[in-house]
Order: sequence, then C-alpha cells, then structure tokens
Amino acid sequence: MSAGANPEANVFKSEIFEGNLRQVELAGTTETVLYGGDRPFEQVAEAFASTPQIAVIGWSSQGPAQAQNLRESLAEVGSDTRVVVGLRPGSPSIKSAEAAGFDFESGTLMTVEKALGTSMMSLALIADAAMAEHGHELVNMMPTAATLGLSHGFWLGHLEARGEKPRQDIEIIGACPKGMGPSVRYLYEQGSGINASFAVAQVGQAAEGSQPARERALGWSVGIGSPYTFQTTLENEWRSDIFGERSILLGGVHGILEATYAAKIQQRYEPEAAFEQTVESLVGPISRTISHEGLLGILDELDEGGREEFAKAYNTAYPVLERLISKIYTDVSSTREIAEVVDDNANDMPMTQVDGTDMWRVGERVRAKRAGTTEDDIAIDPTVAGIYVAGMMAQVDVLREHGHHWSEVVNESIIEAVDSLNPFMKARGVAYMVDNCSTTARRGSRKWAPAFQTRIAQAVIPVLDGTRTQEDQHDYFSAFKQHDVHQVLGVLGKMRPSIDISVE
Amino acid sequence: MSAGANPEANVFKSEIFEGNLRQVELAGTTETVLYGGDRPFEQVAEAFASTPQIAVIGWSSQGPAQAQNLRESLAEVGSDTRVVVGLRPGSPSIKSAEAAGFDFESGTLMTVEKALGTSMMSLALIADAAMAEHGHELVNMMPTAATLGLSHGFWLGHLEARGEKPRQDIEIIGACPKGMGPSVRYLYEQGSGINASFAVAQVGQAAEGSQPARERALGWSVGIGSPYTFQTTLENEWRSDIFGERSILLGGVHGILEATYAAKIQQRYEPEAAFEQTVESLVGPISRTISHEGLLGILDELDEGGREEFAKAYNTAYPVLERLISKIYTDVSSTREIAEVVDDNANDMPMTQVDGTDMWRVGERVRAKRAGTTEDDIAIDPTVAGIYVAGMMAQVDVLREHGHHWSEVVNESIIEAVDSLNPFMKARGVAYMVDNCSTTARRGSRKWAPAFQTRIAQAVIPVLDGTRTQEDQHDYFSAFKQHDVHQVLGVLGKMRPSIDISVE
Repeated sequence: MSAGANPEANVFKSEIFEGNLRQVELAGTTETVLYGGDRPFEQVAEAFASTPQIAVIGWSSQGPAQAQNLRESLAEVGSDTRVVVGLRPGSPSIKSAEAAGFDFESGTLMTVEKALGTSMMSLALIADAAMAEHGHELVNMMPTAATLGLSHGFWLGHLEARGEKPRQDIEIIGACPKGMGPSVRYLYEQGSGINASFAVAQVGQAAEGSQPARERALGWSVGIGSPYTFQTTLENEWRSDIFGERSILLGGVHGILEATYAAKIQQRYEPEAAFEQTVESLVGPISRTISHEGLLGILDELDEGGREEFAKAYNTAYPVLERLISKIYTDVSSTREIAEVVDDNANDMPMTQVDGTDMWRVGERVRAKRAGTTEDDIAIDPTVAGIYVAGMMAQVDVLREHGHHWSEVVNESIIEAVDSLNPFMKARGVAYMVDNCSTTARRGSRKWAPAFQTRIAQAVIPVLDGTRTQEDQHDYFSAFKQHDVHQVLGVLGKMRPSIDISVE
Repeated sequence: MSAGANPEANVFKSEIFEGNLRQVELAGTTETVLYGGDRPFEQVAEAFASTPQIAVIGWSSQGPAQAQNLRESLAEVGSDTRVVVGLRPGSPSIKSAEAAGFDFESGTLMTVEKALGTSMMSLALIADAAMAEHGHELVNMMPTAATLGLSHGFWLGHLEARGEKPRQDIEIIGACPKGMGPSVRYLYEQGSGINASFAVAQVGQAAEGSQPARERALGWSVGIGSPYTFQTTLENEWRSDIFGERSILLGGVHGILEATYAAKIQQRYEPEAAFEQTVESLVGPISRTISHEGLLGILDELDEGGREEFAKAYNTAYPVLERLISKIYTDVSSTREIAEVVDDNANDMPMTQVDGTDMWRVGERVRAKRAGTTEDDIAIDPTVAGIYVAGMMAQVDVLREHGHHWSEVVNESIIEAVDSLNPFMKARGVAYMVDNCSTTARRGSRKWAPAFQTRIAQAVIPVLDGTRTQEDQHDYFSAFKQHDVHQVLGVLGKMRPSIDISVE
C-alpha cells in the first residue's frame, strides 16, 4: 500500500470528545485534533463505559508507561475500567510490574494468555521482534470481536512485507505516542504526556454495546496523557515512525554530531572544546530554541556573521541530506527495513556500543563537569545548527511529498526531537537516547547514523572548509525562511504544554 | 534458492579442454580448474567451431575488455569466429568502440537489436541497472536456442527478487572475471588475464551442431585470458560477488582505512604521517606481501612486538567484523541489496564523492610526492594489517559457512583484493578503485564502508588504545594461524601468473 497522495483536510468527528476537538489551520490545510489530554477528563470514563478491562501486554518501553498512566487516569476520572498487565510466566519484568502495583493477588497481573483471553481490549506493547514472531498466535488468544491496540504500525508493516493479513474479525486501533516510553511516563508524572497520533486500522465485528473504535482510540490517547492527539493511518504511522527514527530523530542527529566533531578534531580543536561546540550546542541551546521559539528562533539568536554561516551550512547540507533522507523513506516504505530488522533479530546480530567512539568518551567528561552549572556559556554553533536544521527540513519535505499530514510531519521531525529525545542525549549521552527506544529504532539508528556521518564528511565539510566548491548553487536557505512549517509550528506551539521534560 | 549446503568436491569434465584441466586439493576438497588460460590455446577455436559470431552487448566496464581480449585471442588461435559489438544508436560509447577497432563499415559494430538477432551467442555486459530494466526485452531479441552469456549473476538475482524467470528456450552461461573490466584488459595486455569462474545456469534448446554450453563457457573464459577458471553456479556467483564488493573488497577496505586514519588524527599525528601509516601501508607492503607470500607472510615481515600488535588488532577486530560481514551476506542473499540498488537507480540517487574526505585530500598530496620514488620506506603497520586481515578472514569464513567452494572464496576475498583492486587504490585513490566497478558495486561500497568505519571506531579502536576492555577474549589469532586458507592460497599461488598488474 502506498502512503497516499498529497493530503488535504485531515478531519474527524467524535460524539464523546466533541467538546475537546479543535479544527486547526496548518499551512492552508485543516486538521481536527483532540486538545488538552495532558490531564484526563471525564469523557475517558465514558469511552470505556462498556469496556470493563483493558490488558497491557508486555513491559518494555511503552508497557510500563502506558499501563501506569492509563490506570491513574481512569482512577482520576472515576472509571470502573480496570487495567491489567499480561506477562509470560517467568518474565524478568514481573518484579518491575509488581513494583508498579500490578500483582497476581489482586488479579491485575496475569499470564499473557489470560490477559488476552479475558479482555475485550488488549494493547500489544511487546517488542517488535516478538510481535513479528508471535503476533498471529497472540491475536488468536483474543475473544471474537475484541479490540487490538497497537502503539506502532510495525506489525502491520511486517505483515505487508510478507503478504499476510491479520485476523479479520477483530478491531485494530492505534494510539501512538510520539516519544519513547520513559518520556511518556516522566512527562505524565510531571504534569503532561506526549503528543500522540491515533488510527482506526481495521473495523471488525464490533462487540455488543461497546463504543465505536474511534472513541476508544481517543480515550486511550487521553488516558496516557497526550496533550494533543491527531489522526493518522497505521500505514502512515509505521512509515513515518520507522523512517523518522532512522533519519533526523536518532540516526541523523547522531551522524551529524560525529561528523561535525571529527571536522573540529581535524582542525586541531581540543577534544572538550570540539564536544562543546557540537554536541553541547545541539542538545542545549539549539534544541531549546527550536522547542520554545521555532526554527526561525535560531536565526534570531545569531548575529549577522552567524546567520551567514548558518545559511552556508544549510545550503550545503540540505541537498545532500535530502537525497539521503529520501532514500531512507524508499527503503522503509518498500518494507525492506522491516525485513532486515526481523532478520537481524532472528540471527541475534549484536548491537555495537554507540557511545564507544572517542567523541562520547570525551562527552562523559564534559557532562561530569557540567553537573550543577547552567548552560549559559554554551553558544549556538551556526554550522552545527545549519546542518541539523537542514536535516530536519529535508525530513519535513520528504514526509510532505509522501502525503503525510502536517501534525504527523512536525511531530515526527521536530517536536519529538527537541521535546522528547534530545533531552535524553543531553542528560546521559547518545546511547541512553538510542537504547531506550525500540529494537527497530536501535537497529535503524545504528544502520543510518554512519551514512549521515560519511555524507557530511564527504560532501558538506569540504565545502564549508573551502577545499571544495559546491556544484549545486540553489538558495535552499531562502526557501527555508519562507517555509510553511513555521506557521504550522506556531499554531502547534501555542497548544504545547508549558513544561519541558526533565531527565535527571 | 539458498546457496547450498557445505560443498564437497567441485569437479567437472571437458572433452575439449581435457588437457588443460587440473584436479587441485584445497584443504581436503577437490576442485577441477582450467589452468593456463592467461594465453589462449587452440582449443578455444574448437569450442566456438560452430559459433560463427559472438556479440558483446554494452561498452562500459567489462565490455571493452572482453570484446578486445576475445577478438585478439580468437585471432591468435586462428579461429573464424567473429566478435561484434552491439550498441544502441547514439550511444556515447560508439567512439570508444570505434577507436578499439569495431566499426559499422566492417560489420563489427552494429545496433543491439541486430547484434542480438544475428548471433547465436551474445554476452550481455551492460550495466546492472539497464539489465534490470530491459533484460527480458533484450533476451527476446535473441534467436531460439541461442546462448546468453553473463559475466555476473545480478540479473538472475534480480529476477529471483521479483519471482520471475528468464525465457526458457535459451541457454544461459557465465564467465565471470574476478576483477573489474580495466584490470581484465590491462592484465591481458601485460601478458595475463584475471581469474574467472564459469557456470552453466540454464540449459535451453541446444542449437544444432554447437558445442555443449560448458565447453563454450570455458572457451569464453580462456578467450578473455583467465589464467585460472573454476566452476560455480550463477546463484553462488551473484551472492559472493555482490557480497564481496560490499565487504572486504571495496566497502570494507575503505571503511577500515577511514577508521584507522581517524584514530591517528585523534592521536594528533600529522595528516601525511597518518596517511602513510594507514593507506600507504595497506596498498603497499601489506597488499604486496599477501599477494606474493600469502597471509602468514605478513607475520614473517614483523618483529615480535609487531606480531603481538597484529594479534591484538586481529583478535579485537575479528568478532566485530565477522558479525557485520555475516549480516551483509544475509542482506545480499535475501535479494534486498539488489532491490535497493534497483530502486536507487530508478530514483536516480546521486553517488557522493568517496574521496571527498580529509583523508583522501591528504592522499592526493602523498601520491604526488611518491611519484618516481620506491616504496621501501613504507612499513607494514601491524594494527592496520591485523584489522584488514581479520576482515578478509571473516569474509572467508562467512563464505565457507554458506557453502561456497574454496576457489570462489579465496578469489572473492583475497586474490581480487590484492592483485586487482588495491593496485588501483594505490595508483589513483579510493574513488578510482570504487568507481571503475559496476554501479551495483559503487552503490554497495558507499553503503557499507561507513558501517565498517563506525564499528571499528566504536568497538575496535577503544580496545586497542586501552580505554576499553574487550569482553570477547577468544583467541581468534590462533585459529587464523592454523587456518585451512593458507594451504589453499599456497596451491593457488603456485598457479598465479608471474606478473603483477601495473596501473599508471
């Protein structure tokens, strides 16, 4: 299935959540969004009025976050719906689930088989690899007309790669937070969840008396604390999600930093100075400025010389990264990336230590020194900012070309980066950011970061240091300044919760 | 189709070439090889006695080399078989083909359609991308019971990826030189061709009176000057070939050099010194020693401290590179690599300048200074040698695990590297080596070199510089010293032509 033609309106209705819907105008397109779900409201109870039990299957990244958020939200709005966790006997996660208050005695912790068999709604939040291997088998444990909830379209992409279909009598819905599980939980505890998309992927035999699939998908999204929920399809979800993590969110940012750091070392900077001007600048003022002021905010923070340097870096990097990122979209959309991950998992391919390089060893020292100080003496490096923003914009443009709606585009390309992921890299380094994501993301990030690094070393750095001239003289920077994305980010920025994530 | 179980004997018979066959014992397995084809012998005329015309289609890498070698060989043995070249009207290659003595007037240069339509044997030596796009169409221009010659199984792999089959009434044979076209020509002019594999992939309706397909495949291999011809299948050919160029032959050697150079720059070596200790060492004494003395020859050239350093580098790199190389084999064998190349070609994805990095700009200066001097003052760097040989051995082991015969394994992993490819990198740099290969190789090399570079930077360099300890304490170096490959290389080394390639 292709990702669809250029989208126009992305609107939906909801009887239960009608008062919480907003129509937003994003660069000339209209989208309906469910706004304000960072704290739950009573309608969540109504959405699940005929759903006595919701099972969360698995306890890795999303499982703990969603099970706890959902349980607390349902309690807060006085719902009778019970959240239970299903784990396989002997699972090492049992202790952690018990510590979070799910236990066998009270019947809120049970085997996977029992959880699936006794719940009319089950959220399959297990690892992609396990879902690829056991998906059909798990789904066969569900009652007729039950609802399968997915927080990621990976399994459906895997089935597409193999020419298979899921069991047809069940409903399949999605609520897909645009951030890793730990962020979903941390932010909820701090007063807000993370933006999410929702989808109704398959309408099966509706269970008697239950609310329509869309209402339960929205209730689920609000229940886990999503301040802003937008509509997508699971086909578009897995494409944009698997693509985004390979591109700017994880692989891209990592590769850009390795390349710009290596360039400074070649220029004989001291290692700590090189780290500060690249990584510290990106995870600090560059990410913060984009989060609070938008992409153009970066330009406001620079003087004229800095803006010129940014523009040169942007113009040099954009065409190089746009071609790479476009290629990544093709490789993902073809289902080849999914098949590769499934093979790597089956062959038990080890994952290297992404923070093993010289740069990240220097980073440990820099972070240790940073503890307790403010970051006011870290400046925006215009070259690092120009390359990074060029990568973000290339991702935005590629997603738009492939028909993704604006909410999905900016959440998968910008908001998730600066509000959810980069803060983890700042606090603990690149491995902590990458390895708290799914195995699919961890493998994809490892695969593509070197491609970003090498292309920048081969085609961007030599132009910036004056040893080569660029053939492509197009002024991409002017297009950037006029880009629709700024209006979109402005609208969404006004709906942003007022808190930043805090990672110790 | 899988690459088959562990092979035992790889033997064949030939009536025509019987006197030139040898049975060689390679590490306990027996292989038949056709030996001494670096200068043609009379049997070539006999093999093509009922083949009045052989068409060479295309004039890119293999086309010019094989058309000229074959024409000269057939003339030398007094054959009446004529070699013609088929090019599409307006092809920019027409001039070059004319300069090589093929012309419209004498009827040795003609359109592709005419060449295919009037020849009972046609060698399709066009680019992989063109073959993927137009293969069926071209093959349909051939007469019933004609023979299609391929120098690479790419097209059959592409058909496998798409679940298609070639036209069934034709014969399909292969003669596949283990080196790029320019090497096939240079070495022939200098008195020897390049080792090749041969295969009979499909026995169609044999044309009346023609020699069996195997005899013509052998005649073709001798005709282009292969000193040593061994048997394979085209399934094993495309797997080992596409895999080998992604691994140690192109992607691997490139990535290893970028990583070891970067490590020296981090240690504050001067750029030219860093280049000499990495690239110059590898393309110079390391490659020469392996070519003349085999892999263990490296150890003989080192003092005790050097051998210890080699062993440490080998032990550290082997498990890291073996996992990467094993993964590459899976990605190739699954047909995903072929499908990716076909997509990249269709999307006209640009290829970056592989010698754009700092290292290769330094290399230009080093090569300029080197001109006219001897290389005696370049020493074997034990760390670079240890990592490189570990990569070669990992490739050898992965190919053996997947059932490839010894001749294919050592030609695709060692002989092609040191006797055909590395001399090009030495003479003109990495881009000259990579970009004289097929588009499939050029794209694959660009894809995988960064993966080698990054894994070495993350998992090998930190162990060698003492900032991390390796968990895997297995003594891979001892296994290397005892390895079957040394006996195999010893046997094949005795059959090696006495000349080295000369690249100006």
